[in-house]
Amino acid sequence: MVKKYTFGTPFNTGAIVEDIKAESTPVPYFEINTDEGISFSCKLADKDIVYGLGEATRGINKRGYVYNSYCSDDFCHMETTKSLYGAHNFILVEGKKTFGAFFDYPTRLTFDIGFTKADTMRIYCDKADIDVYIIEGSAPLEIVKEFRKVIGKSYVPPRWAMGYMQSRWSYYTADAVREVAKNYRKESIPLDAIFLDIDYMDEYKDFTVSDERFGDLPQLIDEMKAEGIRLVPIIDAGVKIEKGYDIYEEGLEKGYFCVDKDGKPFSAGVWPGLTHFPDFLNEEAGLWFGLKYKALTDLGIEGFWNDMNEPAIFYSEKGIERFYEKLAEITNGDKSVDNYNKIKDIVNGLQNSQEDYNSIYHKVNGKLVKHNDIHNMYGYKMTECTAKALEKLRPEERTLLFSRASYVGMHRSAGIWTGDNFSWWSHILLELKQLPALNMCGFLYVGADLGGFGCDASRDLVLRWLGLGIFTPLMRNHAALCTRDQECYQFENPEDFKNIIELRYRLLPYLYSEFLKCAENDEMFFKPLGFEYKDDEVARSCEDQLFVGNELMIAPVYTQNALGRYVYLPEDMRAVRLKKGGELQFEDMPKGHHFVEIPLHEVVFFIRKDKCIPLAKSALSTDAMDFDTLRLIGFEGAKYELYTDDGISSDLNKIEKKIWEN
Amino acid sequence: MVKKYTFGTPFNTGAIVEDIKAESTPVPYFEINTDEGISFSCKLADKDIVYGLGEATRGINKRGYVYNSYCSDDFCHMETTKSLYGAHNFILVEGKKTFGAFFDYPTRLTFDIGFTKADTMRIYCDKADIDVYIIEGSAPLEIVKEFRKVIGKSYVPPRWAMGYMQSRWSYYTADAVREVAKNYRKESIPLDAIFLDIDYMDEYKDFTVSDERFGDLPQLIDEMKAEGIRLVPIIDAGVKIEKGYDIYEEGLEKGYFCVDKDGKPFSAGVWPGLTHFPDFLNEEAGLWFGLKYKALTDLGIEGFWNDMNEPAIFYSEKGIERFYEKLAEITNGDKSVDNYNKIKDIVNGLQNSQEDYNSIYHKVNGKLVKHNDIHNMYGYKMTECTAKALEKLRPEERTLLFSRASYVGMHRSAGIWTGDNFSWWSHILLELKQLPALNMCGFLYVGADLGGFGCDASRDLVLRWLGLGIFTPLMRNHAALCTRDQECYQFENPEDFKNIIELRYRLLPYLYSEFLKCAENDEMFFKPLGFEYKDDEVARSCEDQLFVGNELMIAPVYTQNALGRYVYLPEDMRAVRLKKGGELQFEDMPKGHHFVEIPLHEVVFFIRKDKCIPLAKSALSTDAMDFDTLRLIGFEGAKYELYTDDGISSDLNKIEKKIWEN
Repeated sequence: MVKKYTFGTPFNTGAIVEDIKAESTPVPYFEINTDEGISFSCKLADKDIVYGLGEATRGINKRGYVYNSYCSDDFCHMETTKSLYGAHNFILVEGKKTFGAFFDYPTRLTFDIGFTKADTMRIYCDKADIDVYIIEGSAPLEIVKEFRKVIGKSYVPPRWAMGYMQSRWSYYTADAVREVAKNYRKESIPLDAIFLDIDYMDEYKDFTVSDERFGDLPQLIDEMKAEGIRLVPIIDAGVKIEKGYDIYEEGLEKGYFCVDKDGKPFSAGVWPGLTHFPDFLNEEAGLWFGLKYKALTDLGIEGFWNDMNEPAIFYSEKGIERFYEKLAEITNGDKSVDNYNKIKDIVNGLQNSQEDYNSIYHKVNGKLVKHNDIHNMYGYKMTECTAKALEKLRPEERTLLFSRASYVGMHRSAGIWTGDNFSWWSHILLELKQLPALNMCGFLYVGADLGGFGCDASRDLVLRWLGLGIFTPLMRNHAALCTRDQECYQFENPEDFKNIIELRYRLLPYLYSEFLKCAENDEMFFKPLGFEYKDDEVARSCEDQLFVGNELMIAPVYTQNALGRYVYLPEDMRAVRLKKGGELQFEDMPKGHHFVEIPLHEVVFFIRKDKCIPLAKSALSTDAMDFDTLRLIGFEGAKYELYTDDGISSDLNKIEKKIWEN
Repeated sequence: MVKKYTFGTPFNTGAIVEDIKAESTPVPYFEINTDEGISFSCKLADKDIVYGLGEATRGINKRGYVYNSYCSDDFCHMETTKSLYGAHNFILVEGKKTFGAFFDYPTRLTFDIGFTKADTMRIYCDKADIDVYIIEGSAPLEIVKEFRKVIGKSYVPPRWAMGYMQSRWSYYTADAVREVAKNYRKESIPLDAIFLDIDYMDEYKDFTVSDERFGDLPQLIDEMKAEGIRLVPIIDAGVKIEKGYDIYEEGLEKGYFCVDKDGKPFSAGVWPGLTHFPDFLNEEAGLWFGLKYKALTDLGIEGFWNDMNEPAIFYSEKGIERFYEKLAEITNGDKSVDNYNKIKDIVNGLQNSQEDYNSIYHKVNGKLVKHNDIHNMYGYKMTECTAKALEKLRPEERTLLFSRASYVGMHRSAGIWTGDNFSWWSHILLELKQLPALNMCGFLYVGADLGGFGCDASRDLVLRWLGLGIFTPLMRNHAALCTRDQECYQFENPEDFKNIIELRYRLLPYLYSEFLKCAENDEMFFKPLGFEYKDDEVARSCEDQLFVGNELMIAPVYTQNALGRYVYLPEDMRAVRLKKGGELQFEDMPKGHHFVEIPLHEVVFFIRKDKCIPLAKSALSTDAMDFDTLRLIGFEGAKYELYTDDGISSDLNKIEKKIWEN
């Protein structure tokens, strides 16, 4: 049961697709205060868990910290980071009282979840214009399903996008891409896609291709496709200001760019230098931009990745002018620490500044709206426009699409990756914690940069991260400029990587089937243990294990030099151990606590009691796989309902469902 | 057995106090390469553990990363940080071969411990002037003891310095200090010291006291002492350049400051603005500076804290001049991303720059030595000079002294705290991992900023951190400017904090006795489980439990919202549980894996098989404690040898040893 409570005149975010009438009764569960903006307070009992907040940092249980829902480009996010790339305002309290709440509000919203006062949750924002949805149900999963019902069905990618994918900022030339493919094939490591980061473009201009470095892109695309490898280019939000560049000229002429308070296009420095931002809140502008992807789909591109769409701003044109003025004032020879600190603050305050976000305007239904007031809509609307255009450009087939910035509602159009992260062991665990919370908000096609984007990765880090990554729908290894090469073949004994990635492909029939089910039935692909065992205190407090689909539980290793790890089984399960060389070993384990040895080159996962899963043979790509010849593993007599389709058709009614029995 | 191998003409760091003759045979265990500087390579077997590196980041087992031994002020250190405040070049390989190695080298030394190649450890530095000590023994602890024997006995603080201490940057006035004391006493939470951060001084000038804010410091000291509370002021390395300031004038006149290549005093911006650095490598200068502490000891001060002695440099005078010139060139209206990045790099590269460390010179035995060539000596020598002077100023009593920067050898003069950290859960675990490695290098009086220095702390974080902190010899709660107040009385239900801190005081007879034993016998206060159970693979790989002294094992909770944690007992033990209100409950637990519930307000620790420990009654300060009336807890029939003394005498021969039987 979802009830809506409206305060003031909320901005229509489009997150909710059902037509729900606002209640006239007070919001239950919360005390409301409107002295300053609006705040919603709620007491928490000692054992209450607060789930949710999608991509946010910290625990599966969000208690004990403050989160700002404000899409932010934060490369180096730590446990005290308050905002990440996406804004996902859904929470679910489970305990003495159990309910869900979605705060539909397009910009900064703060969730103080027992930080200022340990027993109090307080959610607040600047303006009392907000829709609050209260969701009730018999259990956490029911509440999530109720919520998902009103936010609309989740995006389903083509099946190949659930293969293993390799990325790097950057493969600078077509030959560099060929080299990656060649090395993967040489080591017989499965690979379904290679990503093109910003350097495939001509001077970072969207929808252009560097003639010098990727002059033979059409041929490269065909060559790769013949190998079962798709190329996935990046598209950034900012359009380079450059005379003669058609996107720039057209956008300018048609008034499709965001403006400043005087109505002039707003200029911001991003990768290409000064750019304008397409006004994705203006539907016409958004569709115009979306249809530009044709330049690449015409070449045979079947997937995209929208980036820098918080939008990330290095500096605005006005900002850098003011900055030069301020610096001139301040670089006066004063050697005091105060002056030095001032300079540091000015320089480091230039990026993603509140001042800039306050200077950008959108045209929404003919009215100017300040960007900061709808900040969290930007990447969402960019990607929604992209998806709508891609439906026109490629009506028969699903296109791979994911985005960095997002808001609830975007899950209907695309997936997300969890943005730039680091080669940190703690970011393996962070990913695990983000996954179920993202599912709650409808984002099913999700995953992190495996091996970590920033910093240098060690061999063992990449291997262990793959041990989680083989279960995430989006499975991409990605690394940043100036970091150590981390393609699997760069390390000693690539056969260990091959073995683990092959397990992903063997599991694909299951993972893909579960994904389709979750999309169809508003289910969660990743569930916290407490969702199924809410009277089991150990399961409820478990922060490092997940159910994957309805049949599996995972407990990946996320610490260095570990012999193994502790695993809690909330029920009897059958452990499946991938050995070196690919053999699977099985061991029945009783409900309870276990220390499970998991050598670096092995993966262990668990089949739930009385369940079974289908396994395929691995192949070098999903294209080369036989999805019909399957064997079941798991408990005797168990049944599995397999969802299959051709892996690519837009028409999801073509999904076939068949029950297999072990 | 410690053997010395000399390459080139090493700088005499003074780390080793025994006179060891260099061997003429090749260094065992390592392959040496002198193509560029010098490097020492060694193959590691799969299960070899590499212990050591003192304060370094990451695991108890250092495998899988690269560490730079180069004293660095890194406020925001993460898992990929390569250098911290101290430089501790001792490693201990345990496994197929077991040996220790100390690389006595006064500046940057890199330890690539299976990062570049998983099976290879490579240690290298720029100049082939180095003493390498290879230490062999029957077991890890024996090797540590052999090493400790040649580096000299560890510093022993006064007993009150093992009480609970409160700090903040800053308590700005004498009344603010009184307020802290009053609040602790009001809540009956034990407290032995309050720290004075940089603002007690007059414009950050060492050995001055702000007349305006601390005009009645002598009276404050007396008042506090009457309450059992000592004041501990900070001393920074840089001496403010200010006409008429006696320290500056004298230092200048006597040539006691570090110089630039032209022999002029080197000027660097730190808290006071431009300063000169006393040349602690010049013994005469060091003693001169050390005797200046008299200004404070004369007022009754009994403890100090040396800070900013890497030395941290915000900018050098020359650096900021160059910076202004460069900025003038570059702030030319160019709005390109390249130019913006250049400016960012210039501004952010100003701090602790290699260029500056290359521009500072010391006078060592009459010769000019470039600072960068002996960088890791600076904080060490500052603190050694301080300790020598304090022995003259306060010959009868031990003085509390700890430092931020350090090198092996400084452990004879003082303790260290692990420097500025963050209110991160991961920094609780980091502290745990640093503790035994610091002990290996002789640093026994150690601890981290409890509750975290940077960032805002939550109540549960502080409580859980105290759960580890009650076992660390240095037990100080410290927080930075602009962060949330984190004195225990600032949170709800301070009685929960009181209960845990009182446990520290109840344990003090044991902790102090074990500390004295470790200092006397070159033992480790904190031991990894693998040190005692080296054939037990689970114990060997344990990264979150420690032995404390010879009788206890700890397994603190370091994750948020945890119900408890997994604990591995390598032998039968008796769990001791501190309940709310102070009751202790006991439970015998067999060797093996356990999930132990540990509610937020409880602490659980473990008494080892057939051991017992003495407990005292808590009091508001160590001064008020009765150290004679003790009871034993633990296994029946067990004996404990108690070391006691008056807690303050410099003469450690006065220690009494008495065997108690349970």
